[in-house]
Amino acid sequence: MATVTLRAIVCSFSIIFLLKPNGFSCQQFSITFQQPTDCGVESYFDISSLSCVKCGPNQVNRLACECQTGFRVLVSNGASITCQQCPDANQGVTQDGYGCIHCPGSVGDNGKCQCPKGSVLVEREWNGNPLNEAQCEACNATEPAFSAPDMTGNRCVRCEDSFINSSQSCVCGTSNIQVRISDIWCICLHLHWSGKLECICVTQALSVTSLWFSSFMYSSAAACLLFSNRTACQSLGNMCVMNMHSSSTINNDACGLYNTVYRAAQGSSQDISYWRTNLPWLYYGDQLGLASRILQNEPLPVGFSFKGTQKLRAAVYSVRGEFLRWESVGGGNLQVGRHDQFLFWGQIHKLFLRLLNGYPEPVFYDVFLVIQKPQEDKRLLAVPLLNINQQFNGQFTNQGSSMNNWYLTRRLMLVDTLSGREKSLSSSPKVIRVASNIKIGFQLVTNTQKGQVYPPLMTVTYSDILVTDPTTQTVTVSFSLEYTMDQEEARVKTDIALGVLGGVAVVHSLLKTASWKRRIASPLIDLQTIMKFLVFYAGDLANVFFIITVGTGLYWLIFFKAQLFVSVLLPLPAQEERFVVYVGCAFALKTVQFLHKLFVQLSVDIFFIDWERPRSKASKHVEGSGEAKSQASPVSIWRTYFVANEWNEIQTIRKINPTFQVIAVLFFLEVVGFSNLALRDPSSDLHLSPEAYTPPYSLILRYGVASAMWLCIGLIQITFFKVIHERFVEDKIRQFVDLCSISNISVLLLSHRCFGYYIHGRSVHGHADTNMDEMNTNLKREAENLCGQRGLLPNSDTQTFQISITNRLRAQYDRIIEPINWRSGPSRLVDASANPCEQSTNAYHTMNRFLGSVIDHAHREMDYIVKDKLLFERIIGMEFIEPLDKSIFYNDDSHSFADVLFYGNEAVLLIFDTLFFCVVDLGSQNFILAAVLTYLQQLVFRLIRNGMGRRNLASKTLVDKRFLI
Amino acid sequence: MATVTLRAIVCSFSIIFLLKPNGFSCQQFSITFQQPTDCGVESYFDISSLSCVKCGPNQVNRLACECQTGFRVLVSNGASITCQQCPDANQGVTQDGYGCIHCPGSVGDNGKCQCPKGSVLVEREWNGNPLNEAQCEACNATEPAFSAPDMTGNRCVRCEDSFINSSQSCVCGTSNIQVRISDIWCICLHLHWSGKLECICVTQALSVTSLWFSSFMYSSAAACLLFSNRTACQSLGNMCVMNMHSSSTINNDACGLYNTVYRAAQGSSQDISYWRTNLPWLYYGDQLGLASRILQNEPLPVGFSFKGTQKLRAAVYSVRGEFLRWESVGGGNLQVGRHDQFLFWGQIHKLFLRLLNGYPEPVFYDVFLVIQKPQEDKRLLAVPLLNINQQFNGQFTNQGSSMNNWYLTRRLMLVDTLSGREKSLSSSPKVIRVASNIKIGFQLVTNTQKGQVYPPLMTVTYSDILVTDPTTQTVTVSFSLEYTMDQEEARVKTDIALGVLGGVAVVHSLLKTASWKRRIASPLIDLQTIMKFLVFYAGDLANVFFIITVGTGLYWLIFFKAQLFVSVLLPLPAQEERFVVYVGCAFALKTVQFLHKLFVQLSVDIFFIDWERPRSKASKHVEGSGEAKSQASPVSIWRTYFVANEWNEIQTIRKINPTFQVIAVLFFLEVVGFSNLALRDPSSDLHLSPEAYTPPYSLILRYGVASAMWLCIGLIQITFFKVIHERFVEDKIRQFVDLCSISNISVLLLSHRCFGYYIHGRSVHGHADTNMDEMNTNLKREAENLCGQRGLLPNSDTQTFQISITNRLRAQYDRIIEPINWRSGPSRLVDASANPCEQSTNAYHTMNRFLGSVIDHAHREMDYIVKDKLLFERIIGMEFIEPLDKSIFYNDDSHSFADVLFYGNEAVLLIFDTLFFCVVDLGSQNFILAAVLTYLQQLVFRLIRNGMGRRNLASKTLVDKRFLI
Repeated sequence: MATVTLRAIVCSFSIIFLLKPNGFSCQQFSITFQQPTDCGVESYFDISSLSCVKCGPNQVNRLACECQTGFRVLVSNGASITCQQCPDANQGVTQDGYGCIHCPGSVGDNGKCQCPKGSVLVEREWNGNPLNEAQCEACNATEPAFSAPDMTGNRCVRCEDSFINSSQSCVCGTSNIQVRISDIWCICLHLHWSGKLECICVTQALSVTSLWFSSFMYSSAAACLLFSNRTACQSLGNMCVMNMHSSSTINNDACGLYNTVYRAAQGSSQDISYWRTNLPWLYYGDQLGLASRILQNEPLPVGFSFKGTQKLRAAVYSVRGEFLRWESVGGGNLQVGRHDQFLFWGQIHKLFLRLLNGYPEPVFYDVFLVIQKPQEDKRLLAVPLLNINQQFNGQFTNQGSSMNNWYLTRRLMLVDTLSGREKSLSSSPKVIRVASNIKIGFQLVTNTQKGQVYPPLMTVTYSDILVTDPTTQTVTVSFSLEYTMDQEEARVKTDIALGVLGGVAVVHSLLKTASWKRRIASPLIDLQTIMKFLVFYAGDLANVFFIITVGTGLYWLIFFKAQLFVSVLLPLPAQEERFVVYVGCAFALKTVQFLHKLFVQLSVDIFFIDWERPRSKASKHVEGSGEAKSQASPVSIWRTYFVANEWNEIQTIRKINPTFQVIAVLFFLEVVGFSNLALRDPSSDLHLSPEAYTPPYSLILRYGVASAMWLCIGLIQITFFKVIHERFVEDKIRQFVDLCSISNISVLLLSHRCFGYYIHGRSVHGHADTNMDEMNTNLKREAENLCGQRGLLPNSDTQTFQISITNRLRAQYDRIIEPINWRSGPSRLVDASANPCEQSTNAYHTMNRFLGSVIDHAHREMDYIVKDKLLFERIIGMEFIEPLDKSIFYNDDSHSFADVLFYGNEAVLLIFDTLFFCVVDLGSQNFILAAVLTYLQQLVFRLIRNGMGRRNLASKTLVDKRFLI
Repeated sequence: MATVTLRAIVCSFSIIFLLKPNGFSCQQFSITFQQPTDCGVESYFDISSLSCVKCGPNQVNRLACECQTGFRVLVSNGASITCQQCPDANQGVTQDGYGCIHCPGSVGDNGKCQCPKGSVLVEREWNGNPLNEAQCEACNATEPAFSAPDMTGNRCVRCEDSFINSSQSCVCGTSNIQVRISDIWCICLHLHWSGKLECICVTQALSVTSLWFSSFMYSSAAACLLFSNRTACQSLGNMCVMNMHSSSTINNDACGLYNTVYRAAQGSSQDISYWRTNLPWLYYGDQLGLASRILQNEPLPVGFSFKGTQKLRAAVYSVRGEFLRWESVGGGNLQVGRHDQFLFWGQIHKLFLRLLNGYPEPVFYDVFLVIQKPQEDKRLLAVPLLNINQQFNGQFTNQGSSMNNWYLTRRLMLVDTLSGREKSLSSSPKVIRVASNIKIGFQLVTNTQKGQVYPPLMTVTYSDILVTDPTTQTVTVSFSLEYTMDQEEARVKTDIALGVLGGVAVVHSLLKTASWKRRIASPLIDLQTIMKFLVFYAGDLANVFFIITVGTGLYWLIFFKAQLFVSVLLPLPAQEERFVVYVGCAFALKTVQFLHKLFVQLSVDIFFIDWERPRSKASKHVEGSGEAKSQASPVSIWRTYFVANEWNEIQTIRKINPTFQVIAVLFFLEVVGFSNLALRDPSSDLHLSPEAYTPPYSLILRYGVASAMWLCIGLIQITFFKVIHERFVEDKIRQFVDLCSISNISVLLLSHRCFGYYIHGRSVHGHADTNMDEMNTNLKREAENLCGQRGLLPNSDTQTFQISITNRLRAQYDRIIEPINWRSGPSRLVDASANPCEQSTNAYHTMNRFLGSVIDHAHREMDYIVKDKLLFERIIGMEFIEPLDKSIFYNDDSHSFADVLFYGNEAVLLIFDTLFFCVVDLGSQNFILAAVLTYLQQLVFRLIRNGMGRRNLASKTLVDKRFLI
């Protein structure tokens, strides 16, 4: 204590003064690392100080210090002993080690007296008084004594029944041999076969002479067969399991012995014919097709529910054949917890086992499914096991996929570190065997409503692992529950839907092609027509695939997630391939349609007709003299610039905000947690605790959730924009039409050769090219209804038309536009030579005048009529009347000119975006990446549409690109 | 076998014909669930058939079927026995159960002969021949025999040394008592104290009379004290550990006994003064301040590295005091695997234990840190333990935070299900005790480079759990490693930086206020000035906080993630609070600045000066007669509309694409995986395997990663837009200036009362209000340099100016604008009465003329000069010269008029977005949510800026809102 205090004071000093921090300082409490095996023969491992301590003189270390051979304990005070050599040479040390005694025979290696076999050593009288000389008494093995030395060799006791039965004495009969089953259990038995103890190879690749098998296999078999010893029978069965249920007709392996006993056994346990009395149940019968009858003949008597209380229960046996306990496998339902005591029974997928310490001996499981009907006793249904490693005569029997050839078995082990031990049962094994892949499969009865399932099947695959470095070696173990149902019916239904809708798509595409033919006014069926048909068909087929895949996704989502009793089960990943192919088709075809739409939009013909006429015609009839040029003051081009600029801006507006769409979808999927609905798990919780087991995702459910989310949010956005935003905030399309009217400019759009749209923008005030006063006055007059209506026809309000023009009109149009088209490439005013520029300006004026006069009915041969479209025409999107000598203007209040903008093709764009998002997600299983790429896709196509559309606009309308900003 | 085949055939039939699927069908293999405890006294549990089977006649079930009392085994054939009653009344059954024998004394309850205490029963002669009548031989307890019956009562053997030592015979001396330590170990000892076996309460709340303590505590203590029995000493120490190391001076509890023995013990183990020979080391000394000396006096002799090979190793003892093994704790480093054999040693945070099955007896760990210096032996450093539950005299000693008052201990247990058992050691415990929270803390030496750490400290908290329903009860266990370092220095540095930068911020804000005062031409220091100062100061202070927080985040990110040897450790979550407050301050202040900027931008004064003059003045000198009005053809307002429309559109463009920014940040954080850098884990891997343990996030690192990502991507975007996009694709600001020039319109912007910007847009062609021919010609002429330069001054190119205007000019401006401002609210032309509308149009024309003439130097008293700004003026953003009698136009080629747009305030916006993102993330720990909300924030503020800006524009420039689309 004095030392401690002193040191503590010095410590404090060194803290307070810090004179030499690295010099004398507080000692850290460390010790040298020593293990019991480090101590030599003369030292022992002191468990208190965790170090090797030398024994006293004449002592050696056998777990503790003991006297050397030939030395007796003189004094013992609990902690230490003193030893003294026995004085005489032929004296031995007594059994208790405290005395010396003369031996009747020889002195053994351990320094104690030794008696011949069958004799006991007597050192004391009955009352405990020590004898001077020890005696050897031979045990009387004959009737009625039937005695033999007990284990310690100190007393004669009754010998084993099996000896007495075989020879009416305590020796084994001549036709019998004496075998040892366990450490203390020795029997004498008659062998019916002539098997000899030979190398028993645990694995094919590695020849291991298993000490466990060679020690106990035959004796267990014999004890089981002859004495119906249940422990021995179980032990034999366990060996068969350790040997992978494999047998051959050539060698007497464990399963062969088991089968021999099985054939000899009488009566069956529990009324199950494959389960013989006193034997473990290892095999089902070997009839062909038995497996499928067992697995698929009759569903379980109770409904199966994801939220229910199905339990697995296993009878657990030790390797020596003792029944250990009933073990309840998993928690409230089959979704067993992660941290079950037995690591196997968790849904952990990768697991680094410390096998050697954790599993000194294997345990064996007979797995049952607990069936609890109301008001009945619990019953246990035997769960058959499919051992993939099972062999018969060296052939794997269970590796095929044909259920009819399977041999079902029972009894499972997890880790076998025992049979790989060669020299002793405590040595390190040469090889260990691990159940590396365990799967419990439930198959649902087709068309069940109440969750009927067939009996489950456990499938197990064992791996043999050569032990090279136990401290760092790892093993991967996976455990999975697989719920399957027959997907054939769903596939047939899908195929039917695909066929029917595909047919409709053909008809629809033909109609569209016909309509297109009419609109380009070409009666020939040429290659271009076929190409067009294919493109239209691609679009329609894409829709078909989209409808089917979304329908399938929603079907699974709703029915799988909402069920209490199980009625549908998800397709397995392998069965999802077809679905993925469908989605891929939908996406590819939709892309074709989208690109085609984009291309068509980028090559549309457009012209802005300026109705404004110069005002100052009055100055024309002044006298010719004078320098003041009598030119009309020019009509300002700025209104055209303004309208063109606006048209340029509305090219890519949509009925939804695409970025908001992406962000909102991402928000609901990843933040709110809808993505958790896509887990292969019947729970429909949106929030998973981070510790909980995360099942894998189902591709179908991911697609279902993602596409439903896209479509829902898309529809909500469209509704919002239509109902709220366009009505109360801003309607860009309406604004453009109004702008046309105010700026006195009409727009002619020709999306096909002879079909297009016309926005009538003639100002009701005659002039729009005026100053602010007049503009404001005009606007006010119009607001107060003091002027005429804006429509093309008198007293009508209709400003927008679909137009079918005659070939003649189109030809004239083409002739005028020729100089403009001649100037290919971007219109660069800066370096263009004067000639083409002037030409195109002339063409502009000509076209302006020409189109103005056409609209004004000035050309008799290119006249037009205005009419309403028939309902049926609207529905099938095709005009019935061909514009032969008069063009036809169809009233169109629904602004369908937006069809040449993104705005009018929202469906295509939304579906394309949805498919793009889903395809990226199916590929990457990452909604965030899908969102990012979808955003980029939208950005890129918007830039393309804007940039190329602007170029097209500039070249068709002759408005300088620099004003389209 | 015949039955099986028949049934199989019937099975096949029922499959093939399916006549009555629910009728006769293949039987499912199910059994009734029975447990060994279900079998009554006359049945036994057949482990083969897993059911209860009745024993034979005269047999009862004790684990297996045995003969009833008084019956002997007649025949035994291994599997079954036949029993026969012994004929005579006073005959007993022999020990082996196979015979009947006359008893010398009475027949015991078990039907066998019984001898008095101290005697052995002899039924056979030495050679095994049975006696007719059994004999009872009293063992001679005196010297030299020293014999007593052995455990079985069949032989006299030498009795325990302790008896012999106490009385020189086999009876306990009078002053001694006989105690039993374990099942087979009975000693006789002299008690020095007068403790009596009383209720030993394991917990405070629950009074539990622990069978384990009452059975073995005193005997272990005695054996330890008197015989220095090491196992007994360990066992006593274990009891002290089970009792939470708690002791009191009143009762003789386990720790009190341990301390008694400790005081009596001589010599110390391993040169450690607190570790006495033969005793376990449980306590460090009880000096005040010892804990801090031990923990913080001297660093470990080896450097500490995250990638290194530090290991923990524990000596494991059983509850009975046996040394079990050395156990290596964890894998290659301290980040031990999740699925270690001992569940405790995993970084699992919640754990459902099946404690009762998994831990029948507690094991005890003495934990050491392995220190392996090169070329030296392994040394083990004792890891001190802080037991939070430790009490002394009923007071908790270790729950305070002051290290000086702690009592360090050693030896840890995980689960104690033993001491809570009351009736028998195999019964279910009333209470179990679990180490519910274990923490290993490493503290880094301040300013270390080589990863020096102080000795680690384990902190353990035990929980007592009342066992109510073992099958469903759960326990939460957490285990954590905590690396800490002294953060005081970092805090001081942060404070210094904050102080210095805060001072700079004050100066900068004062300068800005002064500049503002000059620009509004107000010399008074009034409340508004102070408010302005505060707002400016808020902005500057926000920047200071931002710089400091980003710096701190980057510091930790770089230094923590890049180190090989440990030199810095992350602050603990509690220490991050200050940081979070700083971020919050930065965000709040930045919000103030941002809103102020927004407000200022929304109230800026703007006017479009139209230089266009009517062309047709020529028609004025026609004769007065005639209806043709000789008015000038009006100047078209459409150019103004166009320019206003463009101005409206560039209000919210930025130097980056904000949505792309959000998406890109999200992409890098969540898809590429930069968010994994924010884990409290020194690894800098971007990809985590899903199975790996996920450490918690560090807020500082999250902030560091997120802000760095924002700033990086922001800077890259700005660079891209500046260098590539604006130069080669499109520069909206430049375009606007060009548009002004082409459209012959100047823009006057007054951001302050007497300060603003001027864009000179007078067309070099004189007229811009013309038709397409002339526009194209003009553009071409300009491209070919055939006309003058666009600048305000002759032969200059400078079109953009910062202007400081005189008070007089401003007053005139205000006077003209009055009628416009008078018309408050949105300009609704439709229902506005004529009068105000006309007034404002007049005001427009007046203003147009007035400003035009000012620019043309037409007003002598409101003249201006053009000059360059001084470099220093540019830097501090303040004009030195006050515009007293002449306004000053400063050349400004850098388009600084964008300061009234989003474009010119990119820094504020970017930092605001960054902070918004980070603040949302700090609150929610969810980057996706942060991205979504940031996007929404940007959207909302863009809509506000656009909508309100449009309204301001319409009201200030008199351009109808309907043209601002």
